[in-house]
Amino acid sequence: MAIIEKHGHGGDLLTAQNLFGIPQDQILDFSANINPFGPPESAMKAIIDNIHTIVHYPDPVHRCLSTRLAEKLSISEEQLVIGNGAAECMALVLLALQPKLVGIVYPSFSEYTTLSSTLGATIEPCFGCIENNFKPEMSDLYQLLDKVDLVFIGQPNNPTGILYTKEELRSLAMQARNTNTYLVIDEAFIDFVPVQENYTILDELNHFPNIIIIRSMTKFYAIPGLRLGYSICSEEVALLLKRKQVTWSVNSLALIAGEACLQESGYAEKTIAFIESERAYLIERLEKEFNFTVLPSTANFLLVRLPASMTANELQSKMGQHGIMIRSCSMYPGLSERDFRIAVRTRKENNQFLEVLEKVVKNWGEIK
Amino acid sequence: MAIIEKHGHGGDLLTAQNLFGIPQDQILDFSANINPFGPPESAMKAIIDNIHTIVHYPDPVHRCLSTRLAEKLSISEEQLVIGNGAAECMALVLLALQPKLVGIVYPSFSEYTTLSSTLGATIEPCFGCIENNFKPEMSDLYQLLDKVDLVFIGQPNNPTGILYTKEELRSLAMQARNTNTYLVIDEAFIDFVPVQENYTILDELNHFPNIIIIRSMTKFYAIPGLRLGYSICSEEVALLLKRKQVTWSVNSLALIAGEACLQESGYAEKTIAFIESERAYLIERLEKEFNFTVLPSTANFLLVRLPASMTANELQSKMGQHGIMIRSCSMYPGLSERDFRIAVRTRKENNQFLEVLEKVVKNWGEIK
Repeated sequence: MAIIEKHGHGGDLLTAQNLFGIPQDQILDFSANINPFGPPESAMKAIIDNIHTIVHYPDPVHRCLSTRLAEKLSISEEQLVIGNGAAECMALVLLALQPKLVGIVYPSFSEYTTLSSTLGATIEPCFGCIENNFKPEMSDLYQLLDKVDLVFIGQPNNPTGILYTKEELRSLAMQARNTNTYLVIDEAFIDFVPVQENYTILDELNHFPNIIIIRSMTKFYAIPGLRLGYSICSEEVALLLKRKQVTWSVNSLALIAGEACLQESGYAEKTIAFIESERAYLIERLEKEFNFTVLPSTANFLLVRLPASMTANELQSKMGQHGIMIRSCSMYPGLSERDFRIAVRTRKENNQFLEVLEKVVKNWGEIK
Repeated sequence: MAIIEKHGHGGDLLTAQNLFGIPQDQILDFSANINPFGPPESAMKAIIDNIHTIVHYPDPVHRCLSTRLAEKLSISEEQLVIGNGAAECMALVLLALQPKLVGIVYPSFSEYTTLSSTLGATIEPCFGCIENNFKPEMSDLYQLLDKVDLVFIGQPNNPTGILYTKEELRSLAMQARNTNTYLVIDEAFIDFVPVQENYTILDELNHFPNIIIIRSMTKFYAIPGLRLGYSICSEEVALLLKRKQVTWSVNSLALIAGEACLQESGYAEKTIAFIESERAYLIERLEKEFNFTVLPSTANFLLVRLPASMTANELQSKMGQHGIMIRSCSMYPGLSERDFRIAVRTRKENNQFLEVLEKVVKNWGEIK
């Protein structure tokens, strides 16, 4: 049985190529959650126009991108830490704040666990309830904040796509302040959420010096190969994070692409509207035609539960043989062997996925 | 007085632009030690041909580059750790091996000190002697190895350009084995050294499980903006380093460029011969015409001591106003306010540098 997540994540095209014998540029990747429109043209143009600058070191303190980003977010540059992907931002938080006990809500992005363990912390788990779409009880989260030094939450959470309300975030932030706990809000996918202001406490950060918001530019702007993320927090915490950052960790082309992306107009609105409608389309077909259970995601991906007769690993293997990669979620603590995740892609690609799925399920012979 | 190293290193074009009011693409940079030929054409072509792959995540385990590099170096892939620049490789060594006391030979690359302090180690310094071109006494190094948990040495050393002989390296490696000390040999610039086999114990690494060799691909192949380095060590140590590495820390284009660079033929020979001859040219003119003291570097940079009447910071400022960036070495422990470093560049650029230098020195009015 194929498990293309042997290196821990979706999007591992080389492993898929080796397993399925299909060249990686012919594989349709639903396992990584990337904007299906691809990078903005202006970003591609900026990269190509500035390709000669790779002969110089990157700006070690990311001045141009920081200025532009701070302006866009209405924060001070000193509250920003640009990172080599959101993953580096998470590592810097752990290295700088050195929590002994880290609270993690399962199921969630596996790097919370991997990085915390790798960097010497002990994990205190908290599980979401399936009845509530794997969202944890607020009372459980309050207890968790009381018990540990740092908590990671996903907003929206990966792989469930579930959001906290702004009121919930605010009350978590207050509890974190009361218990002197760092609360890391991973907003890697928030740019995909319509009216994102309603789901972030970015504008209240000055009241909560123990909150760190982490964002990614690689998913929404479809440049994961370049690596680009950032943290927003108090100036004091930002200084601590920067001190742990390896010099030049963010490459020149990521900085250039990032600047170009921030100047885009229309790309965000187009993406959000498109994802919303395609997500609804996928959910409807998966639920009605396949009788699969789909979580009400607010992001550009869907967590899907298969009927009892099927497993995600088997589905991954069968779909892979047809050149379609999905993310098995069988290894997520809190999920089951029947759970998988897919990205929301273009209508044509979503239909390709659905066609192959239909074929695979029909031949499985056991769909109810 | 201008200090363009306010963020710790040479090559900071943006700071120079801000200080001197000259657009960064019009500044001639002698402060970073980059191959003056620029990236191999094949590498630039590979980057541009594969630019569309930034829409996917990088290979988290760097398979293609590792295979090619291991083959070239005649080592096993398991002995290799590809990193986001040599700086990340150094950080991984410190994170993985957690030395409490780190021995550093001064003057040397400032990141040995910065990273060690940042990651919680205490520094035990050892100074080279000016009579011996800042190369330390071997007996001092033996004592250092006996005293500390890990020692960094540069081969050739930056900013001095000085080499240890293979016999010296071997005896240091044996002492390190005896004292159970890790010895990190920073070979970031070794590709510039003619007959490099005579100056590395790479082929003896199997006898020395406590040696870590760190190399850079960004200086020799002129791609510092992309970030690419690697460590070579025992499979056991390599595993420890990999465990501390943030997923996807090496971006896709660096991996692609690295693969292309390794397939180059002729580029290395051409570079080595050219640097050797231009270095000799620069040394001769600096010594004979300017009466400056130049260290007998084996690398693509020169450490130069000014006469007593001049300081490196002042020279940097005066040269900067003419659009030429040099590296002041006044902040290197073990060096003086009269020391600066320059890269060896093309004949035309070296002559531009010498012309401006002549003008600046003449107007200084104090050259002997």
